[in-house]
Amino acid sequence: MSASLPDQMQAVVLRSYGEGWENITIDQQPVPRPDAGEVLIRVAAAPINPSDLAFMRGLYAFEKNLPAVLGLEGSGIVVATGSGLLARRLHGKRVACAASDTGGGTWAEYLVTSARTCLPLPATVSDEQGAMALVNPLTAWALVDIARKRRTKAIVQTAAAGALGRMIARLCIRFGLDAIHIVRRPEQVSALQGVGAVHVIDSSAPDFDTMFADLCRRLGATLAFDAVAGDLTGRLLASMPSGSQIIVYGALSWEPCTFDPGAIIFAGESVTGFYLPLWIKQRSLLSRVLLQRRVMPLLTGELRSEIQARFPLAEARQALQTYESGMTRGKVLFTP
Amino acid sequence: MSASLPDQMQAVVLRSYGEGWENITIDQQPVPRPDAGEVLIRVAAAPINPSDLAFMRGLYAFEKNLPAVLGLEGSGIVVATGSGLLARRLHGKRVACAASDTGGGTWAEYLVTSARTCLPLPATVSDEQGAMALVNPLTAWALVDIARKRRTKAIVQTAAAGALGRMIARLCIRFGLDAIHIVRRPEQVSALQGVGAVHVIDSSAPDFDTMFADLCRRLGATLAFDAVAGDLTGRLLASMPSGSQIIVYGALSWEPCTFDPGAIIFAGESVTGFYLPLWIKQRSLLSRVLLQRRVMPLLTGELRSEIQARFPLAEARQALQTYESGMTRGKVLFTP
Repeated sequence: MSASLPDQMQAVVLRSYGEGWENITIDQQPVPRPDAGEVLIRVAAAPINPSDLAFMRGLYAFEKNLPAVLGLEGSGIVVATGSGLLARRLHGKRVACAASDTGGGTWAEYLVTSARTCLPLPATVSDEQGAMALVNPLTAWALVDIARKRRTKAIVQTAAAGALGRMIARLCIRFGLDAIHIVRRPEQVSALQGVGAVHVIDSSAPDFDTMFADLCRRLGATLAFDAVAGDLTGRLLASMPSGSQIIVYGALSWEPCTFDPGAIIFAGESVTGFYLPLWIKQRSLLSRVLLQRRVMPLLTGELRSEIQARFPLAEARQALQTYESGMTRGKVLFTP
Repeated sequence: MSASLPDQMQAVVLRSYGEGWENITIDQQPVPRPDAGEVLIRVAAAPINPSDLAFMRGLYAFEKNLPAVLGLEGSGIVVATGSGLLARRLHGKRVACAASDTGGGTWAEYLVTSARTCLPLPATVSDEQGAMALVNPLTAWALVDIARKRRTKAIVQTAAAGALGRMIARLCIRFGLDAIHIVRRPEQVSALQGVGAVHVIDSSAPDFDTMFADLCRRLGATLAFDAVAGDLTGRLLASMPSGSQIIVYGALSWEPCTFDPGAIIFAGESVTGFYLPLWIKQRSLLSRVLLQRRVMPLLTGELRSEIQARFPLAEARQALQTYESGMTRGKVLFTP
């Protein structure tokens, strides 16, 4: 351990699962120490993602013992390491990182996590873009990769105006894949057309369902990526062609998926899910390395994130408020 | 055409789609004439199936131009045929048959349908069992076949006390496949245990969800056949192990499928549908012939239907009333 490390650090801590920001406190905590295979990172930047909001409500893939430091991804410098070759090789490196399922989070001055979740950042990628290098870019890449491997003619995506939606939109343009982008408010239509998207429709419009069904038929769209869930899943199923598949990867409506069973019984449609860690786990080591090599150069291009605001850790509640009241204006970052 | 055929016949006719029996009339209609490839069948027996109820509500795979004669399957004697080898070879034969998607139904004294939907009945199969030879037996066979081909350790089924549920239960016993049978009322538990089912649980019981989750884990049940839909689909998903699949093939609750998106996102579960005509269409001619050969002998065994009542066509409303108020007591047949 380096002698220059402080004993205490500031961190954003969740006290109990639920809605609202009263469950969150800004605490002084001991700086954690890395164990074998782990690294200690001085955090440079960490975003708020929809998955953080789901985690805070107790609706994410796992729960941690509380109190727990929040934040699922970030970037920073490896300032100390535990034993093990992989961890030691990262010493002094600037990395993108993910928090572990059981340890502390990235919304803190320091973080200990497994060396295996760290991705060294090239000089071309800033701390801020590096902080958002994992969750959204890899999800966008994975979903478009699924569509390309199936040789789908066209895809559908919901929550298209969000950070991840824009990445998917830009990747579709890059790979010449037709796409129908669904947004939930009329003002988001032009915002998304600004990134080059052609077919953008607003699910709050009265003629949405017929317009959407018509577009699907015309473009041959039989695969949808749904980050909204609720009754939108059912509206997609009802309008998409026979044999279509909906891949749900988020639940921004915070509502249960609801649909007419006739759509899956008689029209041979299906509803499945997507969770990035599961997708990565199913890949070989080689395929993971190749994935990294393909995604990294795009972090300053198709897979970049727009940033709407930066906050110190002490203003965590205000940061969350800002993010939740306008996710499509861009990401909100903590810069400890 | 035979000279002994009458000009008029009695038929149960749907006047408009919707709930209740007021949309149904008992009419005199001209006896239809078979076209090329078609046969005219003098109906011996025809059951009421859940799919008939769905059709009457306008919730089935297709709608017909109304008024239309009801009834999706039945049995009888081929008394006249149109041109074509297949049709002519059926002349005078006793057959099981399905109504076409556009023509008349089986709840009538006579029916014209495609010769291709007819299955000659051996002497060992009665008119009544033959009338129920297609929808339920083939669905039960197909679902258990899907489970066996996947080498699933154990399956789950809902609406297990119904005619189709009992067939699935008996087939599972025959093939040594573990099964968890879900019924919706306490008195149905012992009824189903009577056919030899071991794991029968009642979804109305207060401890259902924990009992069910525990059984799934213990038996390794990762595939469910759901004929109920509604929130039961969501309760299955929430309790079944990661990677499980729900195949919805009915909607006896008449409610939309509803579930927490977390189950399909984080646990890699999926929801798909099953519709018998689609499943049959995907099979080769040879495989259809083999299917027929395997299912036919079981119509007096594992794939038999219990009958609770027989009605003349003139008492159609009473027949429907009897069926809907107690489906698990057995099938209701029309015997024109």
